[in-house]
Amino acid sequence: MSKFFSNKYKNLTPYVPGEQPKEKQYVKLNTNESPFMPSDKAIALAKEQTEKLNLYSDPDLIELTAMTAKAVGVNSENVIMTNGSDEVLNFIFMAYCDKDNPALFADVTYGFYKVFAEINGVKGEEIPLREDFSLSVDDYIGKKGTVFIANPNAPTGILLPLSEIERLLLSDRERIVVIDEAYVDFGGKSAISLIDKYDNLIVTQTFSKSRSMAGARLGFGVANKEIIRDLMSIKYSTNPYNVNRMTASAGVGALLDEDYFNENCAKIVQNREWTKKELESLGFDVLPSMANFVFAKNDKISGKELYLRLKERGVLVRHFDKERIKEYNRITIGSLEQMQIFIKATKEILEGAQ
Amino acid sequence: MSKFFSNKYKNLTPYVPGEQPKEKQYVKLNTNESPFMPSDKAIALAKEQTEKLNLYSDPDLIELTAMTAKAVGVNSENVIMTNGSDEVLNFIFMAYCDKDNPALFADVTYGFYKVFAEINGVKGEEIPLREDFSLSVDDYIGKKGTVFIANPNAPTGILLPLSEIERLLLSDRERIVVIDEAYVDFGGKSAISLIDKYDNLIVTQTFSKSRSMAGARLGFGVANKEIIRDLMSIKYSTNPYNVNRMTASAGVGALLDEDYFNENCAKIVQNREWTKKELESLGFDVLPSMANFVFAKNDKISGKELYLRLKERGVLVRHFDKERIKEYNRITIGSLEQMQIFIKATKEILEGAQ
Repeated sequence: MSKFFSNKYKNLTPYVPGEQPKEKQYVKLNTNESPFMPSDKAIALAKEQTEKLNLYSDPDLIELTAMTAKAVGVNSENVIMTNGSDEVLNFIFMAYCDKDNPALFADVTYGFYKVFAEINGVKGEEIPLREDFSLSVDDYIGKKGTVFIANPNAPTGILLPLSEIERLLLSDRERIVVIDEAYVDFGGKSAISLIDKYDNLIVTQTFSKSRSMAGARLGFGVANKEIIRDLMSIKYSTNPYNVNRMTASAGVGALLDEDYFNENCAKIVQNREWTKKELESLGFDVLPSMANFVFAKNDKISGKELYLRLKERGVLVRHFDKERIKEYNRITIGSLEQMQIFIKATKEILEGAQ
Repeated sequence: MSKFFSNKYKNLTPYVPGEQPKEKQYVKLNTNESPFMPSDKAIALAKEQTEKLNLYSDPDLIELTAMTAKAVGVNSENVIMTNGSDEVLNFIFMAYCDKDNPALFADVTYGFYKVFAEINGVKGEEIPLREDFSLSVDDYIGKKGTVFIANPNAPTGILLPLSEIERLLLSDRERIVVIDEAYVDFGGKSAISLIDKYDNLIVTQTFSKSRSMAGARLGFGVANKEIIRDLMSIKYSTNPYNVNRMTASAGVGALLDEDYFNENCAKIVQNREWTKKELESLGFDVLPSMANFVFAKNDKISGKELYLRLKERGVLVRHFDKERIKEYNRITIGSLEQMQIFIKATKEILEGAQ
């Protein structure tokens, strides 16, 4: 840290992304990437743009915004496109958290919420999930602050029913509730259907997972038009050309290919259920996941050891040191071949451990 | 604006990018884009990545950072890559401006500095340029605050000599001086050579102009390693995957093609000098530019009217309403053909105006 760094950041603890090792090829089940290539249409449209990079992208992203809006059943004025959904989440922390509005989120959830609170100089309050890792909206009712809920939650995969979200929205219409739906396409039900009814709701989604575009960086927020205008004014005050030409066109291509999208989501759900069954037959406790990952532990081996032994065998999963979840690993659902390799390696490790 | 928008942003005035009209094809000389396609190597490498978008980009951008560092004569630890240079500028405002450190910048310069100050809740003090639009470093010496200097300046194109920058750095080693070199490749001399000597210097550059990559969004900051570590911790606290795969590889490709880069810069300089001479022969007052644009006025026609009449004829230049510069237009230097069309249209307008 330099001597010039503003005092407000002296205690900053940045987010730690999943490891991206370069020394060898792994079966990579640690960052919730899709095992499927992006849609051919996304690839073709992105390629076209590589020859036009000398020209700025459209800061209003008119075509991409209109198509995204159509895909989720709202109007363009209800959508803001961003450089990954992390960017729209940060915009939301900037816009709706301050000294009077702390950020409220679960103790076990996307680790970035805590960092966003810190970088924006606002209080972040962690509210413990129930013993079974489900979220009780009653714990948020009556508490002042902007609520951030990942749904399905990460790293657990557990889904909160829409009726509970609606109950939370209704309980206090003067505060913002953010539903982060990065993983909603693998069996969840989107809260976007509630946008017209609740002007205090923001839903965020991403092209990273279900649309195979993690490397392109494209996310978006959906809300009533006044909220979108707030967030657009933050975009135009930080980085108007936040989404580059290639990514914008890849997004359009991905949205033109709904069949491929639906097919891939269905495959992930199928592979998830297969993996869950296999893990359970090996004695794992697997949380009920509606995401493209499962969160599992086994009394026969510690979470950390399983992670390390899998890594030795060329399989990368994600382990968190946090006390409450340190016996678990988060395993991304990849192709069936990848999951078979993972299960085989796990079986061998458990046999060796006995 | 929604009723939820944080009070701290109630008076936010976002940046207004140059217009990107969609209704017809213009000779576009209004956003300082390059008239040349990106390097073939940039195109080829970006295309390759479109097929790997399902995987996250490298958050550390190791290859791109190393190559950028090499190109500007420093080490990787001295460089941070960002989603356009706007992103690194915002990071710098976040890191080095606060209630004790206002931002100091010229009254006529890149309009975003004022917006960055506002969005970050810090005071932005505009320091008037001299009558001839040159910058006097004496006006900054003895004033407390972080200094932002675009060099060459925009929209004037005027270059501040390195010796003056060094005098400013020396005058107060306890405050940061930022030299924004978006336009340095068209005849300027970079302050990067001073990085080792001054730990209070940050230089920012971009691939948008001289490397024909405005639509890819790639910029970077250069400074001593402690400063870079500060800025990296802000990146990792807002958007770790800020640069997507395609852009990162396009950047590598562009850096592999130094001949093309040098050739294009030389062409722009040549076209600039041609345009300047032509404008002067039409009675324009043209500021001495070292950038890929010229800033010019003509007593025979108001700045606004010339802008509008050129637009009618299909030529787009940039006009600013700000009182001190409202008689000028900023004209991007494009291909010789584009500049010939611009000069012809201008000549016709002036003849009609007589």
